[in-house]
Amino acid sequence: MTAVRPLKLVTLLGSLRKGSYNAAVARALPALAPDGVEVLALPSIRDLPLYDADVQAEGFPPAVIALADQIRAADGVLIVTPEYNYSLPGVLKNAIDWLSRVPEQPLAGKPVAIQTASMGVIGGARCQYHLRQVLVFLDCQVLNKPEVMIGAVQNKVDAQSGELTDEDTRKFLAGQLTSFAAFIRRVS
Amino acid sequence: MTAVRPLKLVTLLGSLRKGSYNAAVARALPALAPDGVEVLALPSIRDLPLYDADVQAEGFPPAVIALADQIRAADGVLIVTPEYNYSLPGVLKNAIDWLSRVPEQPLAGKPVAIQTASMGVIGGARCQYHLRQVLVFLDCQVLNKPEVMIGAVQNKVDAQSGELTDEDTRKFLAGQLTSFAAFIRRVS
Amino acid sequence: MTAVRPLKLVTLLGSLRKGSYNAAVARALPALAPDGVEVLALPSIRDLPLYDADVQAEGFPPAVIALADQIRAADGVLIVTPEYNYSLPGVLKNAIDWLSRVPEQPLAGKPVAIQTASMGVIGGARCQYHLRQVLVFLDCQVLNKPEVMIGAVQNKVDAQSGELTDEDTRKFLAGQLTSFAAFIRRVS
Amino acid sequence: MTAVRPLKLVTLLGSLRKGSYNAAVARALPALAPDGVEVLALPSIRDLPLYDADVQAEGFPPAVIALADQIRAADGVLIVTPEYNYSLPGVLKNAIDWLSRVPEQPLAGKPVAIQTASMGVIGGARCQYHLRQVLVFLDCQVLNKPEVMIGAVQNKVDAQSGELTDEDTRKFLAGQLTSFAAFIRRVS
Repeated sequence: MTAVRPLKLVTLLGSLRKGSYNAAVARALPALAPDGVEVLALPSIRDLPLYDADVQAEGFPPAVIALADQIRAADGVLIVTPEYNYSLPGVLKNAIDWLSRVPEQPLAGKPVAIQTASMGVIGGARCQYHLRQVLVFLDCQVLNKPEVMIGAVQNKVDAQSGELTDEDTRKFLAGQLTSFAAFIRRVS
Repeated sequence: MTAVRPLKLVTLLGSLRKGSYNAAVARALPALAPDGVEVLALPSIRDLPLYDADVQAEGFPPAVIALADQIRAADGVLIVTPEYNYSLPGVLKNAIDWLSRVPEQPLAGKPVAIQTASMGVIGGARCQYHLRQVLVFLDCQVLNKPEVMIGAVQNKVDAQSGELTDEDTRKFLAGQLTSFAAFIRRVS
Repeated sequence: MTAVRPLKLVTLLGSLRKGSYNAAVARALPALAPDGVEVLALPSIRDLPLYDADVQAEGFPPAVIALADQIRAADGVLIVTPEYNYSLPGVLKNAIDWLSRVPEQPLAGKPVAIQTASMGVIGGARCQYHLRQVLVFLDCQVLNKPEVMIGAVQNKVDAQSGELTDEDTRKFLAGQLTSFAAFIRRVS
Repeated sequence: MTAVRPLKLVTLLGSLRKGSYNAAVARALPALAPDGVEVLALPSIRDLPLYDADVQAEGFPPAVIALADQIRAADGVLIVTPEYNYSLPGVLKNAIDWLSRVPEQPLAGKPVAIQTASMGVIGGARCQYHLRQVLVFLDCQVLNKPEVMIGAVQNKVDAQSGELTDEDTRKFLAGQLTSFAAFIRRVS
């Protein structure tokens, strides 16, 4: 038996809210990852300025460089995000707009998996296909299945602890992590 | 003959760059509007913070309120924007994310026309359909035609003055403004 | 008090299956329409050939002409359809492809409302935004809200009668018909 | 030096028109493929009936089975198609709707590249992103880049011979085939 290659995944969170349900999803991932797969949180996107090419011309902000470096060093990226107004949150798109201009674009060729959680039944589906179109341009390798769209997330996060406690959802997330690890090992 | 109702349109610009080609498009509009139609620039979206529900809970930023008030007072909104990474600029989506939460949501029922300009041949088409999906949620009334997608915009803006000088493009924009005015008078 | 204008709506069904759940939705509509609003079924799209410009060059098939005539005579169109493979059914798109080439394009300027039903929880949302993009080109006036996406439709149709019996769904459909009638009277 | 694995690609054509420009693109591909890559045309989709689950219940049509078998035997699929009404042609979607129901779904995991040609400048871009969303459900592995969107195709096909003669376009297609072959060898 040969050991599989250990993998380091990073989570990119699309919400700034402290009590974010999607943050609860992202926090659950390290404990749900299969053996040999580490999941680390990227720095919050709240420290990125609004994208402005004039600012870029004076030099990339340190928060952008830090984010890019950590993505480049990872084996795969998990984007965990709410849907705002039937699309990506502006704050997440702003982070992607910055990352897309960094030399040695960090997402190019990178395996990506998507997770969305919302309070409604649809679970963020509309956001996911917009995000997938964006990731074509960035040349990411995006996992097809299973698609993680967590509806009624407010019922799956414990009101006291703020942690994702719903067992079915946790199993489903663990399943996606296992599929994502296999995908990365195959396509990278 | 009865006089038609005068209309006030406002432009929402999706780029922060000082030399923005889309800003040049937006600046050209007041002179291209038909009689009885005034076109005014909304304040720049650069003063809006990143959307954060925790910040919202403490009160909407004054820049958001100002933007919402001016949109509410207008007969129609022209969204003039580049395409970033096959979708809306994050900074534009961030402004929309703020506006969507303001009480008496200012874009609800509002007539909207879209203009995109890009350096490539496609002229921002990919951005337009993402924006249209967002505007379904916001319950806007979006003009179908003519669709303004200005390709190779760098050849249509004068390098010295920075103004949109291409005559065909100016005529096409004037045509959209005329169609938009007729649309507003019909559906409002 | 002045009487409101009576309206005639037609339903375009996107499924050919005899026991189609979406057909059950479409059959429920006449009884749910508000006073003064009549809802009639368009002929099935099953008699349309596959779109082929060479066939068109020899003359539009009678089934296409009949469909176009009935749409042209209606005040609004209700498109009731399943989602296939995250988009429109090919058979529905094929009908639209034919209709789009008919002289005096029958859908131009026509008010349209969309209803999708599916066995999953998402209720056909992915289909709806593809359909909306298609309807931009056809220059339709598409109702924004309420959006009708009926999930778990198999639990809302009576297994014996094959009719849509779920009361909440019926009320929701009646609400959309009322909104659609008001929309048509405003924008037409 | 080790020999690379020979590949067999098949083209799925989205148009039925005899003089189709997209057919001209598809016919050009065998001669443009790199060494070790064979490109064969799939049977026309014109022999597929309109998708109907009742027909399926009686057995898949032979033309569907034949198409599925040839796709299953191929190393990759090139979808070459016009854009109709800002989306996939109904006839192409109809073929995909049939294929998606065939046991041992033939497109699952299959590498796919997309080529669209149109008479306008945009070259079919709107079709491509709808098709990509469909292919997520089918679990295809879709090449990101280069994206082939051939605008003004009527100027790139010789009016006499009906063949794609534009040298720049031919080189661009050859480049995509080379990228696609490398992609297949990496991800399969």
